[in-house]
Amino acid sequence: MVERRGLMLVLSSPSGAGKTSISRELLSRDKNLFMSVSATTRPKRPGEIEGKDYYFVSPEGFEGMVTRGEFLEHATVFGNRYGTPIAPVEKALAEGHDVLFDIDWQGTQQIASKLPDDLVTVFVLPPSTKDLEERLKTRAQDPPEVVAQRMAKAADEMSHWDAYDYIVINRDLAQSVGEVQAVLAAERLSRRRLIGVSEFVSRLREGR
Amino acid sequence: MVERRGLMLVLSSPSGAGKTSISRELLSRDKNLFMSVSATTRPKRPGEIEGKDYYFVSPEGFEGMVTRGEFLEHATVFGNRYGTPIAPVEKALAEGHDVLFDIDWQGTQQIASKLPDDLVTVFVLPPSTKDLEERLKTRAQDPPEVVAQRMAKAADEMSHWDAYDYIVINRDLAQSVGEVQAVLAAERLSRRRLIGVSEFVSRLREGR
Repeated sequence: MVERRGLMLVLSSPSGAGKTSISRELLSRDKNLFMSVSATTRPKRPGEIEGKDYYFVSPEGFEGMVTRGEFLEHATVFGNRYGTPIAPVEKALAEGHDVLFDIDWQGTQQIASKLPDDLVTVFVLPPSTKDLEERLKTRAQDPPEVVAQRMAKAADEMSHWDAYDYIVINRDLAQSVGEVQAVLAAERLSRRRLIGVSEFVSRLREGR
Repeated sequence: MVERRGLMLVLSSPSGAGKTSISRELLSRDKNLFMSVSATTRPKRPGEIEGKDYYFVSPEGFEGMVTRGEFLEHATVFGNRYGTPIAPVEKALAEGHDVLFDIDWQGTQQIASKLPDDLVTVFVLPPSTKDLEERLKTRAQDPPEVVAQRMAKAADEMSHWDAYDYIVINRDLAQSVGEVQAVLAAERLSRRRLIGVSEFVSRLREGR
């Protein structure tokens, strides 16, 4: 195999467009793809696991990480802070692993300003507004006011589609997963990431 | 479906790396992909069909097309002239069809200087020099001096791998075809080519 640097695959979408289902399916199918684990100040929900779902940190601990420049991106959402620690991502990329991010357009812009060459961005759109509303209503966990906030946020989030490399319209989960897999497969063949090709071609040309 | 502009998929490789087999298989699997038909001054070989394999033209006819700027790229190979007429390619792209090109690095550079945004370039490498030599020797049609010329040309051609977007190392035909299909699938989702997305997102945001 030719040596390759890993990539950061960002999936963004309005809430309810099906991004979480796509991410889960991708991770189960692709053994070289790892979910980025965020740090957050929000309270742990039942069933969530420290270090797998999130690193749960105090507001003071989070602020310290910001001050020390330890985040690739960070944001405040509904009063809680979320951030992606740089160190584990850098380690994974250097080892040729790919890292999946489930973040919004602002987080994507922050990462783009830090590691643009390693970044592949996909925006997932719902097939219709009706479909989006129905999906948001079926989330039992969230109170109605959160659903309303999400619909407003969705319209705002969708206005940023044009900052992304690829667009997937999520009509069917299996098809959308296949499309993101194609993006991943193609980007893994990107000449810029195949850091071992130069040496490989030299050997070919010299008949070694 | 969201309206999409077609793309030009260039496959380049040293002779004998298996590019022709990959192209044939891609075309048979993908009904939206069409082979670009070149004009050439070389004599028609047995079994070749005018307008399908090539447009066979006289040296004078070819020169007239060059003068009138009717080629996307043109070149002289082993004394014969080859060129890609622009008009049918432009028509196919505007209709959302994709066009496959089997051309060398110089032709690729010429196209890149004319329609860079529509271009997706893949360089196919052999897995080893030994493999390349064996494949060139099994082409019964060609005399030994042509094989020798091709080996020299192969080493030269391979030095241009770094001008391509994607690299495919052809160890196995089926896998390589799958890899180029992934490139094609991903590039079809490229935001830049999805000219209908802007209108689609506007409708979503307005709840239409």
